Amino acid sequence: MEKVRILELKKTILENNDEDACLLRRELAERGIFAVNVMSSPGAGKTTTLLRTIEKLKDDFRIGVMEADIDSDVDALKIREAGIPAVQLHTGGMCHLDAQMTRQGLAAIGASGYAEGGIAVPPGDGAAAGEGPDLIFLENVGNLVCPAEFDTGCSMNVVIYSVPEGDDKPQKYPLMFEKADAVLINKIDALPVFDFDMGTARSWVLKRNPNAQVFPVSARTGEGFDEWCSWLKDRIHG
Amino acid sequence: MEKVRILELKKTILENNDEDACLLRRELAERGIFAVNVMSSPGAGKTTTLLRTIEKLKDDFRIGVMEADIDSDVDALKIREAGIPAVQLHTGGMCHLDAQMTRQGLAAIGASGYAEGGIAVPPGDGAAAGEGPDLIFLENVGNLVCPAEFDTGCSMNVVIYSVPEGDDKPQKYPLMFEKADAVLINKIDALPVFDFDMGTARSWVLKRNPNAQVFPVSARTGEGFDEWCSWLKDRIHG
Repeated sequence: MEKVRILELKKTILENNDEDACLLRRELAERGIFAVNVMSSPGAGKTTTLLRTIEKLKDDFRIGVMEADIDSDVDALKIREAGIPAVQLHTGGMCHLDAQMTRQGLAAIGASGYAEGGIAVPPGDGAAAGEGPDLIFLENVGNLVCPAEFDTGCSMNVVIYSVPEGDDKPQKYPLMFEKADAVLINKIDALPVFDFDMGTARSWVLKRNPNAQVFPVSARTGEGFDEWCSWLKDRIHG
Repeated sequence: MEKVRILELKKTILENNDEDACLLRRELAERGIFAVNVMSSPGAGKTTTLLRTIEKLKDDFRIGVMEADIDSDVDALKIREAGIPAVQLHTGGMCHLDAQMTRQGLAAIGASGYAEGGIAVPPGDGAAAGEGPDLIFLENVGNLVCPAEFDTGCSMNVVIYSVPEGDDKPQKYPLMFEKADAVLINKIDALPVFDFDMGTARSWVLKRNPNAQVFPVSARTGEGFDEWCSWLKDRIHG
C-alpha cells in the first residue's frame, strides 16, 4: 500500500476566518460537496466512529477523509486500511483547524475545485467535477475547547462524546455543544461500568443547543449507527 | 455551607510567561508551598483523583484546591463538600492557565505571600506564614493540548489519562507527556471492557519522557493510590 499523504499545514494569514468559512461553506454547496467537521476530546472514538459511518455510507457517496493531528499519522492509516482515501493534516502543535486549513486539506484529498494551497479554482479544475469525493469527513484535533472557536467552513459540525467522560460534559464545555448540529454519545456498550445517566446527558446537550440531534451509539458494537447514518444521509440529500 | 468562591480570571498582561513561571516556582519553594498542576482530557477523572489523593494526604498537609473551568463550578463544589478549601477559577472561555492566572488563584485560596490580584507580597502578608495551605492542587482546564504549552509556575506537572481514551494518547499528544513529571493512568477498573495495553501505554509515555513516573490507578476503587501518594509525599519532602 502506498504511504499516507501527510500535509504540514501552513499557518493561516486571513484575519477574518468567519467570513472565509461562510464563503467556503457556500462553495462546497455549489460544488455538491458535503463536508462534516468531527470534533471530540482525545480518545472519544472519532476514528472508530468514522470507520463505522463510512461502512454504512460508502455505497451512496464517494467518501474522503481528512485526519487532523498534531503530529502522528495513525488515524489516516486506519482509514486507508479500510480502502478509503485519506490525508493526514499536521497542525504542527496547533490546537484547532480553521477554514484556510480546511481548504488546504480539500486540495490534498482531491476535492473538485480546490487546487494545491487550498485556493478555490473554478469547478472542473482540481479533480474533474463528479470525480472527487462528494462526502468528506474532517476529523479535527482531539480537543473539546479550541476547535469550537474556529469555524472550519464545513457543512455540518458533529461532536462525539463518550460515556466514560461523564454525563456533565455539555455543562463544562458549553461552546462545543452550542456549535454541534449532531452529538453522538459513544461507547454506550460501557454504560454498565460507568455512572452515566443518559437522560442527564441528553438534557444538558439540549440546554446548550435545543436544535442538536442526539444519537447514543457504540462504535464498537455498531449499535445506534442505523439511526445516525440515516439522519446524516437525509441531511446531505435535503 | 457557604458558597464556593468563584474568581473570574483576568487576562494576562505579561509577555514573558516562562520567566514569570520560573519566578513563581522559586517563590513557592521559598515559602514552603508545593503546588501541583493537574492536566488531562475532559472526563479523565481529575476531580475524583484529587479527592482520593486528598483523602490520603490531608493529615500531613494543609491542602487547598484551585479548580479551573471555562464556566461551571461543579468541581470546586465537590472538593468543598469533602471539607477542603477550594476556589473556582473561571477562564472565560480560555483553554489554559498561565503563571499570572495561577498567581490570581493563589491569592484567592489564601496562600501565604499572595495578595489579591496575584501580586507576590513579602511572606507574612496575605495569609500569615504557616497558616495558608502548604500543598495546593491546581486542576487545569480539561484539554490535552493547550495547557501543556503554558508553564503555570507550579512545582510539578501531573497528567491523568484514562483507559477508555486508548493506549495511544502519548503518541498523539506529545507535548503534554513531555511536560509530565508523573502520569496517572486512571480507570484501570475498566480495563476488562476496553482494548488497552498497559505495556504499550507505559512505553509510549516513557518514549515521550524517560523521567516520567507512571502510576496505574483507579480513582473509583482506590487501587494504586498508595504508590502514587507515597511517591508524591517523598517528592514534596525531598
